Amino acid sequence: MANKPSIPKGTRDFCPEEMAKRNYIFDTIRRVYALYGFQQIETPAMETLHTLMGKYGEEGDKLLFKILNSGDYLKSVSDDELKERNTLKMQTRLCEKGLRYDLTVPFARYVVMHREELQLPFKRYQIQPVWRADRPQKGRYREFYQCDADVVGSDSLLNEVELMQIIDTVFTELGVRVQIKINNRKILTGIAEVMGEKDKIVDITVAIDKLDKIGLENVNAELRENGISEEAIRKLQPIIRLEGTNEDKLEVIAKVLADSETGLKGVEETRFILDMLKTSGLKNEIQLDLTLARGLNYYTGAIFEVKALDVQIGSITGGGRYDNLTGIFGMPGLSGVGISFGADRIYDVLNTLDLYPKESVQGTQLLFINFGEKETAYCMPVVAAARRAGIRTEMYPDKAKMKKQMSYANAKNINFVALTGESEMEAGKITLKNMATGKQQSMTSEELIRHITQK
Amino acid sequence: MANKPSIPKGTRDFCPEEMAKRNYIFDTIRRVYALYGFQQIETPAMETLHTLMGKYGEEGDKLLFKILNSGDYLKSVSDDELKERNTLKMQTRLCEKGLRYDLTVPFARYVVMHREELQLPFKRYQIQPVWRADRPQKGRYREFYQCDADVVGSDSLLNEVELMQIIDTVFTELGVRVQIKINNRKILTGIAEVMGEKDKIVDITVAIDKLDKIGLENVNAELRENGISEEAIRKLQPIIRLEGTNEDKLEVIAKVLADSETGLKGVEETRFILDMLKTSGLKNEIQLDLTLARGLNYYTGAIFEVKALDVQIGSITGGGRYDNLTGIFGMPGLSGVGISFGADRIYDVLNTLDLYPKESVQGTQLLFINFGEKETAYCMPVVAAARRAGIRTEMYPDKAKMKKQMSYANAKNINFVALTGESEMEAGKITLKNMATGKQQSMTSEELIRHITQK
Repeated sequence: MANKPSIPKGTRDFCPEEMAKRNYIFDTIRRVYALYGFQQIETPAMETLHTLMGKYGEEGDKLLFKILNSGDYLKSVSDDELKERNTLKMQTRLCEKGLRYDLTVPFARYVVMHREELQLPFKRYQIQPVWRADRPQKGRYREFYQCDADVVGSDSLLNEVELMQIIDTVFTELGVRVQIKINNRKILTGIAEVMGEKDKIVDITVAIDKLDKIGLENVNAELRENGISEEAIRKLQPIIRLEGTNEDKLEVIAKVLADSETGLKGVEETRFILDMLKTSGLKNEIQLDLTLARGLNYYTGAIFEVKALDVQIGSITGGGRYDNLTGIFGMPGLSGVGISFGADRIYDVLNTLDLYPKESVQGTQLLFINFGEKETAYCMPVVAAARRAGIRTEMYPDKAKMKKQMSYANAKNINFVALTGESEMEAGKITLKNMATGKQQSMTSEELIRHITQK
Repeated sequence: MANKPSIPKGTRDFCPEEMAKRNYIFDTIRRVYALYGFQQIETPAMETLHTLMGKYGEEGDKLLFKILNSGDYLKSVSDDELKERNTLKMQTRLCEKGLRYDLTVPFARYVVMHREELQLPFKRYQIQPVWRADRPQKGRYREFYQCDADVVGSDSLLNEVELMQIIDTVFTELGVRVQIKINNRKILTGIAEVMGEKDKIVDITVAIDKLDKIGLENVNAELRENGISEEAIRKLQPIIRLEGTNEDKLEVIAKVLADSETGLKGVEETRFILDMLKTSGLKNEIQLDLTLARGLNYYTGAIFEVKALDVQIGSITGGGRYDNLTGIFGMPGLSGVGISFGADRIYDVLNTLDLYPKESVQGTQLLFINFGEKETAYCMPVVAAARRAGIRTEMYPDKAKMKKQMSYANAKNINFVALTGESEMEAGKITLKNMATGKQQSMTSEELIRHITQK
């Protein structure tokens, strides 16, 4: 019996039109990364569970897709263990490998394994799918692409500056108006210090990160629930409500953080980045947002996030500075900074705003209608010449009804159709039909090629 | 304790240079596919085991990587089943998904699932990794890329002709001299019929497919072992040793197969394909090889295989015509024909012959040496202008020792280095060093950009 085919939930097929659109996005990002001297690497889809486990928290360990060992996978499991039915414990006996969960941990593993051959600073980009056994929902998939760029082995803030320029360039090229938000983990540390709640920095930043979503009242309520003192919450209010230009904010926050060495360092770093960017003519606004936190435990310096201005959607790009990326793999002291474009959300934004250039989704440009064997033989050299001239060309393979062949041309959005019957063959010509205007013209093969390549 | 990182056996990291080379191959194949009107699709890495199992034979089922179910994967397994320790049976209870094994079965699944939206004939290409739990060995990996193109929904032999042209174009563009071998499953069937051993067609073709490797004596011995009669083996000898031009061979084999309807159909098909190709100016030789079989059970018409002429390596591309690709998924009667480029072997061939154009592996073109903050600020607008002009440009992020920065430029094979000290800043110029010639020249930023873009 034939089974009715399906694909695993949370995964997707990409049809030709979707692929063309996604390639347009990926190619844009790739070109800009290369323009800034980043080099591409790829890592295997499967990593050992040693590499993956414990890197994404307890929840992350559960969301890893694990691959059953080949051969007798039960060999190393005892009868007692089987009976125990401890799924968490047993899975590490049944499985040695998992699918990569992000591109950051594989990159850290790569840097450590290839340290001898790497020239630091190492500027790499990586565009590959990742897999998470998350509950699928609208806009959240179990397989999705990440597009990361990172620099490791350089503490210079010029790296942060260039990553902001990359973000600005990519979205300018894609035609998406964005706001780039920036903050600094050291400023957040300084704020917690000044509030007298240094130990509660995680609670504080998790709460204020929600300001946009839940409003000031609820943020304060959450802080209270977490045992932050009224005095501390009072001190936080002017900071969290800070408005004005980036310079205004930096000036105020520098005064507030006067007693925090770390805080002032964060202010200084942010000022350097913003000053450098002022001279580089960004097309999009960059805004200092003191409530921006993003996976705080991970970042140690600058933090970035990008919002689309014309579509209601979450963050479409993010990143930041982290220290000690490779420490978990026995190579401490290496600082890095990186960004990650959220390809799926950017795709949604471009779809909503219909921002794809016509050429980017154009497949076949020219179709030769098949009138039979003799006509086909006549057309073959012209087809070959058109392709040599770089024109994406098809010969309809079967001598089907004209209507069927024309509807094929329409379905594939083909710009030109070439018709070659008895009279054309006698005259040594081809009739070219422009599918957009409906206009037909008789011409030689050289004229045909010139006509299309000059469009 | 930090663990020493590794990757699963049979998998690979691709470093920037390898990526550049692989991208050059993939981009060439992609461009040619598009030139012939093929459209790209992608399918998920994971497919349901329903889709994958039973499609690659018993051995194939074992070589599928299976993914452990999320959550309580033991839920549906009874104590008795656990005790039984039947690994083959239990794995389908523990796992519902597997990693794709090739691109053909997912494509068949795709065609059936998307039949309503597809315009036939459907010409698709797909370049994605596949996974096999094979024993890793030199040149055989557990994760590798396939680059397939198929046409479904057209019986026309023009498709075969175009696929041969694609093969010829790709290898011509890559600079690899190849021999394209062609045969036809119907000719093989005819041979078995004429030998009086119709039922033993599999044994016969498996044996004669080995002629190149084991020689005629051993082929005949294998045939005898499989119970093929001496009379039949005697009849096979003139066919298997057939030499001369394709026309010569077709003439002889047409006579030999005079009593086999199927066989003559195969001769006619082959003659049509070879005749059409004669007028299309192939750059590489196409040879009729009556011993070519390739996974016989699968193919029903033309069979192709490509050998590199200047490197000793197995087949680097193959393909053929198959009927009823989608029948296993409940959609019978759809014929298809396809080819698959073996990316890893082609990569080995290009490496051996060192055939990569210099530009294809060129990363950063221009590096600005970092002399400090003031100099950096002076250079920033020039860096931005160079990138706007499409020059892949880096500013070394740290004010490191000159020697370190220059060795960075050397390691990355950067063509030009820009030096900007006090005197350059005063004169409003930049010193550009050509890393190949060692020549230094002082110039304005406009001159610098023109100098590099005109190279």
